[in-house]
Parts: sequence; structure tokens; C-alpha cells
Amino acid sequence: MVKVLVNGFGVIGRRVADAVVKQRDMELVGVVKTKPDYKALIALRKGYKVYAADESCLKEFERKGFDASGTLADALENADIVVDATPKKVGAKNKPIYEKKGIPAIFEGGEKANVADVSFVAQCNYDKAYGKKYIRVVSCNTTGLCRILNCLDKNFGVEKAWAVIVRRAADPDDTKGAPLDMLMPNPPAIPSHHGPDVQTVLPHIDIVTMAVMAPVTHMHLHSLIVRLKGGNVKKEDVVEALEEERRILVVSAEDGIISTAQLIDLARDLHRPRNDLYEICVWRESVSVVGSELYMFYGVQQESDVIPENIDAIRASLRLMGAEESMDETDRSLGIVRKL
Amino acid sequence: MVKVLVNGFGVIGRRVADAVVKQRDMELVGVVKTKPDYKALIALRKGYKVYAADESCLKEFERKGFDASGTLADALENADIVVDATPKKVGAKNKPIYEKKGIPAIFEGGEKANVADVSFVAQCNYDKAYGKKYIRVVSCNTTGLCRILNCLDKNFGVEKAWAVIVRRAADPDDTKGAPLDMLMPNPPAIPSHHGPDVQTVLPHIDIVTMAVMAPVTHMHLHSLIVRLKGGNVKKEDVVEALEEERRILVVSAEDGIISTAQLIDLARDLHRPRNDLYEICVWRESVSVVGSELYMFYGVQQESDVIPENIDAIRASLRLMGAEESMDETDRSLGIVRKL
Amino acid sequence: MVKVLVNGFGVIGRRVADAVVKQRDMELVGVVKTKPDYKALIALRKGYKVYAADESCLKEFERKGFDASGTLADALENADIVVDATPKKVGAKNKPIYEKKGIPAIFEGGEKANVADVSFVAQCNYDKAYGKKYIRVVSCNTTGLCRILNCLDKNFGVEKAWAVIVRRAADPDDTKGAPLDMLMPNPPAIPSHHGPDVQTVLPHIDIVTMAVMAPVTHMHLHSLIVRLKGGNVKKEDVVEALEEERRILVVSAEDGIISTAQLIDLARDLHRPRNDLYEICVWRESVSVVGSELYMFYGVQQESDVIPENIDAIRASLRLMGAEESMDETDRSLGIVRKL
Amino acid sequence: MVKVLVNGFGVIGRRVADAVVKQRDMELVGVVKTKPDYKALIALRKGYKVYAADESCLKEFERKGFDASGTLADALENADIVVDATPKKVGAKNKPIYEKKGIPAIFEGGEKANVADVSFVAQCNYDKAYGKKYIRVVSCNTTGLCRILNCLDKNFGVEKAWAVIVRRAADPDDTKGAPLDMLMPNPPAIPSHHGPDVQTVLPHIDIVTMAVMAPVTHMHLHSLIVRLKGGNVKKEDVVEALEEERRILVVSAEDGIISTAQLIDLARDLHRPRNDLYEICVWRESVSVVGSELYMFYGVQQESDVIPENIDAIRASLRLMGAEESMDETDRSLGIVRKL
Repeated sequence: MVKVLVNGFGVIGRRVADAVVKQRDMELVGVVKTKPDYKALIALRKGYKVYAADESCLKEFERKGFDASGTLADALENADIVVDATPKKVGAKNKPIYEKKGIPAIFEGGEKANVADVSFVAQCNYDKAYGKKYIRVVSCNTTGLCRILNCLDKNFGVEKAWAVIVRRAADPDDTKGAPLDMLMPNPPAIPSHHGPDVQTVLPHIDIVTMAVMAPVTHMHLHSLIVRLKGGNVKKEDVVEALEEERRILVVSAEDGIISTAQLIDLARDLHRPRNDLYEICVWRESVSVVGSELYMFYGVQQESDVIPENIDAIRASLRLMGAEESMDETDRSLGIVRKL
Repeated sequence: MVKVLVNGFGVIGRRVADAVVKQRDMELVGVVKTKPDYKALIALRKGYKVYAADESCLKEFERKGFDASGTLADALENADIVVDATPKKVGAKNKPIYEKKGIPAIFEGGEKANVADVSFVAQCNYDKAYGKKYIRVVSCNTTGLCRILNCLDKNFGVEKAWAVIVRRAADPDDTKGAPLDMLMPNPPAIPSHHGPDVQTVLPHIDIVTMAVMAPVTHMHLHSLIVRLKGGNVKKEDVVEALEEERRILVVSAEDGIISTAQLIDLARDLHRPRNDLYEICVWRESVSVVGSELYMFYGVQQESDVIPENIDAIRASLRLMGAEESMDETDRSLGIVRKL
Repeated sequence: MVKVLVNGFGVIGRRVADAVVKQRDMELVGVVKTKPDYKALIALRKGYKVYAADESCLKEFERKGFDASGTLADALENADIVVDATPKKVGAKNKPIYEKKGIPAIFEGGEKANVADVSFVAQCNYDKAYGKKYIRVVSCNTTGLCRILNCLDKNFGVEKAWAVIVRRAADPDDTKGAPLDMLMPNPPAIPSHHGPDVQTVLPHIDIVTMAVMAPVTHMHLHSLIVRLKGGNVKKEDVVEALEEERRILVVSAEDGIISTAQLIDLARDLHRPRNDLYEICVWRESVSVVGSELYMFYGVQQESDVIPENIDAIRASLRLMGAEESMDETDRSLGIVRKL
Repeated sequence: MVKVLVNGFGVIGRRVADAVVKQRDMELVGVVKTKPDYKALIALRKGYKVYAADESCLKEFERKGFDASGTLADALENADIVVDATPKKVGAKNKPIYEKKGIPAIFEGGEKANVADVSFVAQCNYDKAYGKKYIRVVSCNTTGLCRILNCLDKNFGVEKAWAVIVRRAADPDDTKGAPLDMLMPNPPAIPSHHGPDVQTVLPHIDIVTMAVMAPVTHMHLHSLIVRLKGGNVKKEDVVEALEEERRILVVSAEDGIISTAQLIDLARDLHRPRNDLYEICVWRESVSVVGSELYMFYGVQQESDVIPENIDAIRASLRLMGAEESMDETDRSLGIVRKL
């Protein structure tokens, strides 16, 4: 049993912790938090050990009468690997701590690529990450782009791709706030960082991305344009290739799924914890070949699509299993579906 | 094992079906739907029998190659009781069907009170509903008001109450639409129907309600003003009474719960199916006594607070258990919490 | 003085009526409405004659004590031309009435192209519409696309264009409702109708469009990708060409304009009636040349960008002026700006 | 002609400057800004002198090639009075500057009451402010409450009042962000500060307020409950009293005004600059007497209801006119309506 510590207990950390608990080859050492809030209380209720980020945080936990198990330093003593799901740029600051301890670490997409030895999407480059001490799971949008483009590239050859990403403005429980009743070029300059970020995983893909922020909380929606290398590709072939790819789900407006809201509803109906949707969801109706280009719409659930990647990254780093075996195990444990 | 049929498989029906499955004394006959959409597909995936509402619906199911088990008429043959969770006013139209079969039925709050023998909130009037053939579970807002007012009335005596209800404009997966970026007196006339609806359960409570619609999807928020009969009530006494009442949860901004979004996040963290929140959530900070009045804010999750009531209504109608025993069983099976 | 009747007094009709009043060569006969609501009351307050759509509507006006001037039939007696701004598809139903009277008519973009002799954007094809009895002003999104693409095509040659249109879900005062907290492929199939609609005005432009609906009320935002015929085009050249084109405004995030909300705020600051923004607004920062493609973001104010087009269409139909003269007059009267 | 300087050019400052320009007895010295953004560019376009807040700001203006007229210090040399519309708490910091110059100042509701000699709503206490050197115009919500309660108190006697304020989460052009898809008790503790703030203007009114934040940008909506001193008040009497009060507008759902969105639309239709709505708008249908209490809903446009108050405050401070004369002049110049 590999002992996994989760440092950071927000959007990603909470989900990784729950996913670790579901793995047959992993054990959760505990979670590290900065504040003794309701998330910490529920962690305790689930039987997770809760550690304070540092001594000063620990004091706040104690002041509130919260039963903390120590600090990050204590937690690291018992861990074989750490998943760092702290806020953007904090992971890079934490890295020296992990290096000093000689402990491997998984970082998230808020960190720059150079924080790690490899940027990672399991079905794209698991083998490249095998045995690497520091692995960076790329962001939700980049993960979505990589899964789709890798599938298209494997099957048909991608000559060039363009994506317009409509981004959710805030996560559902984010009260810091988001622009209301407005659309925001985000960033106003083109291209956005997503294209280069895809290339940290799929260096050979030629892609330009643009991003717009919209006042929604649940999902990103990508509009994708791809010029394929081979001509004469048919819609049906593309749909079939997407259906056969894991962690991609083809959905249909004919079944009543006409917006990101029904995608979330689907996850709710499946009784996914936190209505998580690990699969990138492509609309069957949208897959179209017009002239020499292929088009499609797909949804990316920003909170959860990277969760299976984190689990696989742990296995790749520690050489626990091969790519297919790990992904099978992850998909089974998380209840990932291939078809409705 | 009581055989329960769920007619209608939208917001309420889907949840009641899942809750029935969790009961030790109940068995789900199946669910009745009008359309073979993704909700029907997932019902099948869960092993639920899916029936079409009528012969013409059945043809649409068959046309789509969907494996339906027959029609409502077929389903009723196997049922001891039906929960009618069809859209507003359809329940009243269905009643003659149930009467003809001699089968008891639970109706929802979208129906008028006179559809049933009694309007029902378990902890307010379970005994009154005991053995009644037709029971109406009142609406989400009325259920919330009844739980809170009943608790206050039992403990302190309610002389008069006023509530301003800020209503969610649409459910999360409702694409029919809601007013965007506006607030709407709903209805513009005062009082709203909620006060009289409370009195169908608690006839002695003097209450006036006003309702405003806001562009949110997840919860209603009530602002409550109560004049208590006894003077000299202290905030602490009120908080304690609320904490001791089942299906009410006292939460605190100090724990980081500062909006309805954190209440939903709480339900997600608890791994509630569909992030359901059966408990009425009162903010500890808001409970205030100013002059002769008591004030508070609380949140009502419109999709799920009535689910335990439906389960209890089944037991009351069929005389399966007494009030406390039924509510204990329901609360245990649904994982309802009394304290964070 | 040309006598103009405005039939339909919603989003477009109200604005056209106000714009007609500002023209030195036009006179407003009156406006035709179906209901005696607050919009009708304000029309009276402005001194506009208000006509009822038909006899039955007129009775409702009278029942409410509203001072109507007669019916559509009466109004047509006094008009030289009618602008039909009735809801989608009603224009086509009204056309026989205008034909019978022998009166020219301007239709809006909700009608099919074949309702009219020509689909119209003034700076693209004024001359083609000159003297035509029935002219269709294309929709807001199509107008935006045509203005931009025509400018690029004139200056650099457009080989192919792709646009992803993020659509506002509802107009600000639309209470019929819109999807809340979700993104909706709209339609889910690709391409959307906007590409072919552009070609009703600019038949030689090769364009594919995709559309997504977002819960905002104020503007559409387009993400545009264009392959230019001539190579070696520089960003500066494109910005300059856009700046020199009328009814296009180049704005900058550097000036604090970072979302569609600041565009509306700009219109408010300019004291535009109803904060109308007749100009298509391109972000200077977004204009980028990457490889062989040109990219940009621009905003389209759905309620008002077609208003100047309606005024010009009247002049084109009745041969009142030449293209440049008409557009100069329209732009001056409406206070259209070329530069901040 | 009184020379008025406006310090701060955001939501309130921009409107006060435009309103000052419309007064026959006032002259705008200029406006003071911290940044040379699009708001500054449009001020120049309107012919307003733009001053930088201080020397360091002035350098940024110059660096951008912006034609600033100097700094706040320079501007004060030419002013008889200053309206301080700087952000919350900055007014208090600025006060010593005005004191040193011996110049009277109008402050806004973001400042604490003790920044000024008197808190002000023109139709409530103009005479009390007459000749006072420092006057604080109270916030938008407090102004709305004061206008309504003062009218009710004058006509019927207010024994006690309760208000639930549903607050807009952000102004339309505020990109700093607001909670999305959630309702937030704001603050969670009861009562909110609005009650005591009303008492700075109407000390004898007994009032308790609660506030909830909703994700809208355009207006606040108040739910008001009032116990009147005199019994037997009829709805018709209350409506009549409200209709006769200036700066209050009675609107009706029968005319199609069913939400705050139609109120804004009304302002747009009236061609109000920035769709401002200076009037507090009460729904006729909502005015109800139930038992011993009076109820109503009304909307408060947060950006503009205090603009007439600022103009009157200038006249009161400088003893330019009496109360009625000043309010008449203000209402006429701003186009305030008494009836639709």
C-alpha cells in the first residue's frame, strides 16, 4: 500500500483524497489544510487525518479546538508521495520541502511546467512519466484538449487545431467573485496560454487557442476546429474513435442533453461524489466535417477531469503499474463510464 | 416489503426512487416516465424498471429501442402505493386512476391541498396522516417554514411570523429558462401563497409571506421574523432548540459557510447523492433577538428537503411505523446529520 | 420628409422610431403595438402616435383607456414606407398587407432572406439595395460579421473565416427567461446559420460559424479566425484598417475596457439613448497574426448595431441619397464615434 | 454660478458631474481621477476638465499623453464646494484637505455618519442641512428607505418597520467580481447596518433591517413591513400618498412592469442618461394591508437614486435655495417623473 499525502484541500485536493481512498493499492496518510473550516470538519468526519500547513496554522486549529494531527512536516514523515494541490504558485514554493525529504510529488496545472520533470495526461504520455520524481498534472482545460487531440491525432492525424474556450468564471463555492452579466476576453491577447500548455504534453500538435470568460460555475465549453492530415474522414469515423477512447463520453442532444447543465445533471444522476464528471463530453450532433475541417463542441468539468490523472500520476511516478493497467484500475474505482 | 411505484421522474421523482431503494421496508416497483431521455437511460443502468406514462409514450420508447417494462397501468398492478411526482396539476388528473385501482397515493406540493386527505410535514403532523389514503407532501419552501416554525412554536410559542422568501429562479438543469440579471416580486401581490400553505400543516400559526425571485439555481433563502409568545427568550436558547430538532442544521459563517454555495458544497463534501441537502440550514450568526422579535436566515434546498417527507408519508399512509421510528429510519438511511 | 411607420415596438422597433425622429429627411407617422403596456405609455409621452395592430388589439387599448390613433390599417394610409420590427416570422405574414397597399417595407433579420429583394448591411451593399421595394436588415450577429469581414476583405482579401459566437441568452428586459448558470451549444449542430446568413450579404465570403449561448444579457462576443489572401499582413495594418472603417470602434484593455460590461459602460458614459452601442467593438490587444491566420475578439450589441442599417435601408429603398451621404447623415444623427 | 468640483469619477462621481452641468445655478470646475482610463477620455470628450488625484497620478496621466488640467490641489483653488465621490473611507481621509482650504464638502454614504455635520435626504431633512459645511448624502438603500418611510410617517405615522433588502451583488461594470449562482446573507448577522443608518436621517423611526446579496447588477429590491400608528389605513390611501410624494414612482405589473429589469427598461425608454432611475419605484400591486401591517415591494437603483440628493445637498450647504425650490429645480433638470 502506497502512502499518499494530499497537501491542499480545496477544489482538487478534496477530490484527490477521496479518490486515493478508493484505490486498492493506496492509503491516505492525511490531508494538509491552512484553515479549520467546514471542509476540515467534514474531513475529520470521514476519518481523514487533518494536518495544519505549518506551526502558525496549527495554533489556529488548536484555538478552535480542532483535532489536528500535526503539521505538514509531521505528515511528510509517513508519506511515500505527496500530491500538492495548494493554490497556484504555492506548489513551486513547497517543492524544496519535498526535495529535502526526498519525497516524490505530483503538482497541478496551476504550476509552471518547469516545476516538474514532465507534464502529464495519462492516456497521452504515461510512459514518459514512468519513474519520474516530479510530475505535473496539467490543468482542466489542457487535459480536455489533450485527450481529444490525442485521440484525433492517433486515429486521423492532426495537422492544425484551433480552440475557443469559454471558461467558467468561478467554481461553484467560490465567493471571491466573478464578473456578472458580462463576457470577458480572458486574456484579451491572442493566443491564450492553453495552446503552449497542450504542447508540454503533445509537443507535435500545432494549436492556437482563444479564451473567453462567461458567468457560469460548472463547466468549460470548447469549440474545436481541426484540420486533419488524412482527407475524406467521415463524421461516423470520428464519433466511433471518440466513443472508443477512455475518459471521453459522446453525448447527444437527442437524449435531452442540450447544455452543460444536463452534463452536470448526468453526473448527479450517476451519484458521482460532488457530481464530478471525469469524462470529457462531446456532443455527437456537433461532430461535423465541413470542407477540410472537423468541428465539435465538448464540455470540460473543471473540478474533476484531472482527478483520474492524479491517481495515474502517482502510479507512474512510483512505477506501480503500466499505463493501461493503471488507467483500468482508476476508471473502475471512480466509476468512469464509456457509454450512456 | 412495501412495493412503491414512482410516477414522474423529474426533480422529485428521481430522488424519491433512490430513497425508496435505500429503505429496509420498501421495494421499488419502477418509475414512470413520458420520455426515453438520458434520465431514463440512467434509471435502467441502476436497474430500475422504467414504465411509459401511456400507450403513446410507450411507442416513443419502442421507436427509440428503449427497454420499457410497460405502461403506468401495468406498473400499478404490482404496486402497494404510488408516489406521484408528476408536474404541477398532473397529480390531480392522475388521482382518479389511483382511486379506480384502490391504491393509496402520495402527492407533492405542486398540487392543491384538496387533492389529499392531509398536507404533510413528518415532524409536524405524522400522526394526523397515519392511515390516510391520500397524503400531500407540501412544497420545499412550505416544508422549510413548517420545520422551523414548528420547532419555535413547540419550544417558545409563536405569536406571529413574517417571512421574505428569496426564491431560486430555476433548478440547475432547467433549460426552459429563468429571468437573468433581475429581481422579480413573485408574485407582485402580497401576501404570497406560502403563508396559507403553511397553515394546511400548522393551522394555528399566524404568518404572512412575501416572495422575490432571484437568478440562482441552488437554494431558496428565507429571512424570518417571529414574535414569540413568551418574552425574554435568549439567542442561545433558540440555537439550542434548533440544534436539537431533526432535519434542521445550524451552520456558521465562522466555519466558512457564508452563502448558499457553501451549503451546497457541504452536501457535495458529504458525498450526498446529487449534492442533496435534506436539512434546513440556519445561520447561527443570524439568530437574533431584537426587541420583541426573533430573526434568522436559513437556506432551503428546493430539490431535496421534501425527500425524507415522502418516505415518511409512505409509512404513515400504510401504517408501517410510528412517527419517531419512521423518521429515525429515514434519517439514518439518507445520512441526515444533526451537527457538523 | 419621408413618412415612416414603425410596426412592432420591441427591442428594434423602439430604437428605429427614436432614430427616425432624429433624421432631417424623415418623419415618424407612428408606431404599431399589440399591447397598451408601459412602452406604449412612454411612446405617448414622447409624442408618438400609437396604433393598435388590429381591431381586437384596439379594443384592449380602449378598454384600458389608452389613447390609440387607430389600427395598422389606418397608419399605413399615412406612410411612405414601413419598418416591420414585429417578432420573428410575423414580418413574412405582414408582407401581403404591405404589398396590397403598394408600400415599401424594411424587414429585420428574424425573417428569412427570401422575404425581401435583398439582405442588407449598408457599408457592404447599399448600392445593391438602391430602389429595392423590400429590404431585409440582417440580424445583429450577421451585421457584426459583415462589417468586420467586409473591411478585412476590402483591405487584405479574405480566403476563409471561422467565427465562434458566444451569444447573450436574453435581452435585458426579457423575462421569458434564459438558461441560468450553464453554457449551451446553440445549436448543437455545426455550422450554425450565421455563416450562410453572412453570405446573403457577402456571397463570396467562405465562412463557418459555431454558436454557444451564455447567461448574459448585454452583448454577443465573437472569436474570429481569418485566413487572409495576401501574406505578410501586420497587426498594425489590420488595426489601422479597422480604425478607418465606419461603425467599427477599436477599443483597448489598456484604457480599462476589459469586458463587454465596459463596452456598455462606455455607451452609458456617452449618454447614448438606452446605452446603445451602434459600433462593432474590436479589442486592439486581440488583433493578432499567428502563422497564416489573423485573430480577433469583438463585441456586438444585439439591440442596437442594426439601427443605423434600418435608417440607411429606408434611404436606399426610396432612393433618397447615395450610400456615403446616407451613412454620413445616419452616423452624425446617432452620434456614432470613430475613435475614443 | 456656484463652482462645483467632483472628486472621484466612478459610479456616483460621473453622474454628479453630469447633473451639475444641467443646473442653472452651478458650473462644473472639473473632475478628479486617479487613472487615465476610458472614463477620463469620455470626460474630456464632454469638455470636462480632468484633474489627477495627486502628483504621482498626474505623472501617469502625462505618461499616457492625457491632457490633464493639474491635480486635486489645483482644482480646489477654483472651487466653491467639492462633492467627494471617492471610494469608501477615502472621503474621510480627504476631509482634512478640504478643511485646510476652508471649502465645504458633500460626502457619500460609504463614509461614516460622523464625517459630516448631518446625514441627508432632501425631502426628509433639507432644512437641518441648511448652511452646514459638511453634509453626507446617505447610501442608495438608506435613501430609498428614508423616502418611503418619511412619506408613510408623515401621512400615517410609522410605529415600527422591518425591511429585507435584496442587494445587487455588483454594479454593471464592476469586474472585481461578485458571487455567482448563490444567495448570501450579507451580513450574516441581524440586524444589518441599514436600520441605524436610516436613523441618522430619521432618528425617530424604529426599524430593523436584514440584507441578502443576489447575483444581479441593476437594482436592489426591498420587502417592507410597516406597523402604522393609525389603524384602518386603506391600500388606496397609501398608494395615493406615495403617488403624491416626489422621487417615488408607483408602477404596475398590469403595465408589464414585473421585475427590476422592466424598471431599468423604463429608464432606457425615457432616454435617461446611463438608464438612471432617480425615483424609488413601488409596485402598486404589492401595497397591501394585512391585519395591522402594511406591506410593499419597491426597487432602488443603486447607481442613481442619490444623484438628486447630491445636487440638493450642494444648495443646502451653500444656502442657495429653500428645500422645495431646490428639489423642484433638481427634479425638473433631471427629468424626474411623478407618474407614468
